[in-house]
Amino acid sequence: MTNRLSLNTMTVRKSTLSEAVDGAARHGIPAVGLWRDRVAEAGVDRAAKLVRDAGLRVSTLCRGGFLTGPDVAAILDDNRRAIDEAATLGTRELVMVVGGLPHDVAEGSRDLAGARARVADRLADLAPYAASRGIRLVLEPLHPMYVADRAVISTLGQALDLAAPFDPSAVGVVVDTFHVWWDPDLATQVERAGREARLASYQVCDWLHPIAADPLLSRGMMGDGLIDFAAITGLVANTGYAGDVEVEIFNAEVWASDPNDVLATMIQRYDALVAPALQIG
Amino acid sequence: MTNRLSLNTMTVRKSTLSEAVDGAARHGIPAVGLWRDRVAEAGVDRAAKLVRDAGLRVSTLCRGGFLTGPDVAAILDDNRRAIDEAATLGTRELVMVVGGLPHDVAEGSRDLAGARARVADRLADLAPYAASRGIRLVLEPLHPMYVADRAVISTLGQALDLAAPFDPSAVGVVVDTFHVWWDPDLATQVERAGREARLASYQVCDWLHPIAADPLLSRGMMGDGLIDFAAITGLVANTGYAGDVEVEIFNAEVWASDPNDVLATMIQRYDALVAPALQIG
Repeated sequence: MTNRLSLNTMTVRKSTLSEAVDGAARHGIPAVGLWRDRVAEAGVDRAAKLVRDAGLRVSTLCRGGFLTGPDVAAILDDNRRAIDEAATLGTRELVMVVGGLPHDVAEGSRDLAGARARVADRLADLAPYAASRGIRLVLEPLHPMYVADRAVISTLGQALDLAAPFDPSAVGVVVDTFHVWWDPDLATQVERAGREARLASYQVCDWLHPIAADPLLSRGMMGDGLIDFAAITGLVANTGYAGDVEVEIFNAEVWASDPNDVLATMIQRYDALVAPALQIG
Repeated sequence: MTNRLSLNTMTVRKSTLSEAVDGAARHGIPAVGLWRDRVAEAGVDRAAKLVRDAGLRVSTLCRGGFLTGPDVAAILDDNRRAIDEAATLGTRELVMVVGGLPHDVAEGSRDLAGARARVADRLADLAPYAASRGIRLVLEPLHPMYVADRAVISTLGQALDLAAPFDPSAVGVVVDTFHVWWDPDLATQVERAGREARLASYQVCDWLHPIAADPLLSRGMMGDGLIDFAAITGLVANTGYAGDVEVEIFNAEVWASDPNDVLATMIQRYDALVAPALQIG
């Protein structure tokens, strides 16, 4: 049942890219989601070859973004590089974590509306280049507890509103269960994402309770937390989404475990909790 | 400028009710928001007399709620008691923290939709009694990071949807800056709350960054965090809201400080950051 499963390299953070790719291949996982740090370590051309030689596909590149700061030239430069890397790696989907309040700007550091406007401006700057390279900028709504420092996009509806001016082949959205499971408007907005042809990626991990002392590391293995994966996966499946399902876990305990055990557990939980709901109901 | 300021007893958690009321009166604060623990310690009749004798009004009683559990009789009993207490204390507004996923129910503990349906059912049970006592059930959307254990209402729009079947004099909503500041739909929903005559309370405190290790204690004094109080207060003022502005801070450092210093700082910050925006723009 793993034919749509993808291992995000963050889930096996200790592993080099080569080890992660090896592990995925040995466990019959057909795709990987790549973080740019692992790609940079290997070098982008070698990274592309590594994945290709293992017979895997790249579901997404994580991540571009951090668009809200004052240094527009540097932001555009870094994001164009990320677009180039995605093209070289052979994925269409570049996940964008758009950035929080610009803390480096003393003036206006509480200006949420301004930060959101800067995201819209930078998307307009970047979308033509992304389209020219065959890459889609995939907006990721992050849980509202990260609005200050990581993403001023907090809901799927807001991501779709920001994507609306652009062609769906240039700007899409990702549904990550951890970030959106609480949203009372989720069913409506997932359906809308499908209808508007913007659903570019589906990422799964669980919401642990209580929240970890470092909230960034509160993402858990499916089944260890409170998310109803059948319910959310069913919403995604009903849009006709036929892409990969990426498992992306930031968690100190998972990172400290043997990567082989992590992959085995991941496959078991995916098979039990996610895969059955992937068929259109 | 403190003529609409209200001290929530949680802000001076070390103080007895008598001390909190004394402090408010000495500092020229005309209202208090009462938590039921302080009321219970004093006894509800004595609490009512304490506040009345000090010449203060009660802006809200905090809190009823926790409606999602399986023991319906106990839930209704406790909330009817809270309604009675509010009536005795002379406030119209009973703040409702509606409860999270029912962890005591093994079956269905991941059923967010079910928990939300139970909130709607319990409101239907309680609204007639509240109306008969002249009390309004004030739904509080809590930050989405509390959806698991404290409130399955996460946005103001969702609170207004849940309130919609009931008369605005029986079921209202509260805007608490900490809980809603991130919401991309905030301006629209505050305007709607005013238009639908449901805006029953306005509570202020700041969002601290990073989030405290205990996320419940991450509420800060206005000005110590990232919230733009002029912007949100302006939205509230534009609805015509003419009620009190309650300062409710859960914060270990604030709680460890001398309550007189806390009140002095609170007034200073309120005057600088909140009060100027309270006039209709």
